[in-house]
Amino acid sequence: MLNFTVGPVMSSEAVLAIGAEQVPYFRTSEFSELMLENEQLIKKFAHSTNDSRVVFLTCSGSGGMEAAVMNTLTKDDKALVINGGSFGERFVELLTLHEIPFTEIKMERGKALKPEHLAPYEDNGYTAFLFQKHETSTGVHYDVKLVSDFCKRNSCFMIVDTISTFLADPFDMAEQDAGVMITGSQKALSCPPGVAVLVLAPSALKRIEKTKCCCQYLDLKLALKNQDRGQTPWTPAVGVLRQINVRLKEIEKNGGATAEIERTGKLAEYFRNKLKEHDLPFEIISESLSNAVTPLHPTTQSAHQIFLKIKDEYGMWICPNGGDMKDTVFRVGHIGYLKESDYDKLIDAFIDLKKKKFI
Amino acid sequence: MLNFTVGPVMSSEAVLAIGAEQVPYFRTSEFSELMLENEQLIKKFAHSTNDSRVVFLTCSGSGGMEAAVMNTLTKDDKALVINGGSFGERFVELLTLHEIPFTEIKMERGKALKPEHLAPYEDNGYTAFLFQKHETSTGVHYDVKLVSDFCKRNSCFMIVDTISTFLADPFDMAEQDAGVMITGSQKALSCPPGVAVLVLAPSALKRIEKTKCCCQYLDLKLALKNQDRGQTPWTPAVGVLRQINVRLKEIEKNGGATAEIERTGKLAEYFRNKLKEHDLPFEIISESLSNAVTPLHPTTQSAHQIFLKIKDEYGMWICPNGGDMKDTVFRVGHIGYLKESDYDKLIDAFIDLKKKKFI
Repeated sequence: MLNFTVGPVMSSEAVLAIGAEQVPYFRTSEFSELMLENEQLIKKFAHSTNDSRVVFLTCSGSGGMEAAVMNTLTKDDKALVINGGSFGERFVELLTLHEIPFTEIKMERGKALKPEHLAPYEDNGYTAFLFQKHETSTGVHYDVKLVSDFCKRNSCFMIVDTISTFLADPFDMAEQDAGVMITGSQKALSCPPGVAVLVLAPSALKRIEKTKCCCQYLDLKLALKNQDRGQTPWTPAVGVLRQINVRLKEIEKNGGATAEIERTGKLAEYFRNKLKEHDLPFEIISESLSNAVTPLHPTTQSAHQIFLKIKDEYGMWICPNGGDMKDTVFRVGHIGYLKESDYDKLIDAFIDLKKKKFI
Repeated sequence: MLNFTVGPVMSSEAVLAIGAEQVPYFRTSEFSELMLENEQLIKKFAHSTNDSRVVFLTCSGSGGMEAAVMNTLTKDDKALVINGGSFGERFVELLTLHEIPFTEIKMERGKALKPEHLAPYEDNGYTAFLFQKHETSTGVHYDVKLVSDFCKRNSCFMIVDTISTFLADPFDMAEQDAGVMITGSQKALSCPPGVAVLVLAPSALKRIEKTKCCCQYLDLKLALKNQDRGQTPWTPAVGVLRQINVRLKEIEKNGGATAEIERTGKLAEYFRNKLKEHDLPFEIISESLSNAVTPLHPTTQSAHQIFLKIKDEYGMWICPNGGDMKDTVFRVGHIGYLKESDYDKLIDAFIDLKKKKFI
């Protein structure tokens, strides 16, 4: 089945071939080398400083978000957090659970971040800033330069969730001076889910050193100490980590992060142009789009019904929304091993549904 | 390469075939059905009561151990814990980190649990008991009935790590009145690593209801609420969960847990007999063996050197030990997709090393 969701996404043949292999034993120099190579390539693609570090946690992206919060923030911080959808809401929940003092910048759904959203918080003693570079639930791509400049002016430690935008939209961790960058194996890395990836700038490493983590499993001090020699404190998702290795080398061979971002951007553009061309009854609901996904409001039918119909009668997955967006929004992803002709099939299905007056 | 470690282990053809497939989208009724089927089969194989529940966490077995501690114990508990090796030590670390009052029963390596080890703790107000049914690091299979009877007499809530013994040695969760049973995808379930499985008796469910978990990612209240409908709060390791499904059905088809345990027991016996037959310079160091593994002390060569030699020159993995057992102990596992002829190859390699006077 063609998969147009935002994760898990489609994998390349090379990644699937690794999935078909026996998973090797991992307390070996061979696996250590692979992990150190993964670290180098992730750093390169994230444009991190040379003295940044990468850890690979066996958990979901949400586990990675919590690890970032638990290991780098304390009750002495005063955090700002952008909440523009389900994932911003998750940061809010995590800050609440871990008793980090914070102020929430509640964003209207679909709306871009503008200087006036941040202006009230200048010179107010904030020490940390958390946000989604791309709020996956609503498909809004926030202006990272705006946040980065705010953080530089206000000496804020920046935690940026790039889970669905890493390798889909441009990002320069060093230039933006991000402290932590989070992504997951099942987004543009296009591997099976199971691994969260955190890139940690020296500012993060300093904070981790001083913070007592309340959870052993997600303790980044332990993860870092083991990654020194390309290992992990607990048995990791060895299979997925090997798939990540193949995938990173595939991206490198094809021109690196820039080429992959360009490829994804072209796919997004192709799909969006086709939508217009065929005058489909869907409105794009984000005023600041990521290359990773097109969020759509169908004007003539329930979004969830369209998701079910496309799955059950056309054998494809588009990405449903949950909660109170269940009937009003679905999304079409552009990350993963997809090509233009795959979108032709999806567009054909939409045209067919329009012909049958289902939409 | 043949893999005789205790995880990741070898997978069957059917499990590998799933690894070669694209990972499907999972917020669907199809995936929910699969997860509910996984729950039923795990309950059946664990011999849990009907009103027990199962959760699947995307993490290592150690993450599962921590989830059990964090979600079912509080500062009002008084716990007993058996520490007979690395995994007992992990329980001790977790109880310390989470500030659960506890007493440690330190066991000599390789020694079986006997009534006199528990006698001093009778009628002392203990409320919980944590132990490894099989301490994987030293290959000692503790007498679960001894612990279970103690727990019944003393009204102790029992948390049992069965990570490497589930489906390798007999266990009856209901009969032993265990509160929590923990296992992992990469042990006798013979799937890639990435998923911890917890079986929760009603006594555990009651405790979880009343306990505030300090980690959202490992919060069992959220896991249980989602598993009601066959889902997870965060994107799980969908691929591994599908492999677990295939594997559980494979076991069911071949005669269920009993047949799988018998098969593993026969493999262990086959290997141990061959060791004797060829008079290899290895001593079995456990006085209470599990079917899952044979822990060996080589009397003529460093254990780690033998591990490296077998890996680099014979293309097989045996299981090295870490820490201060690095040079004195290696282990040979019997879980996973192995057959007698595989052990013949390993024995041949040992015989060859003996001929070459390496051992």
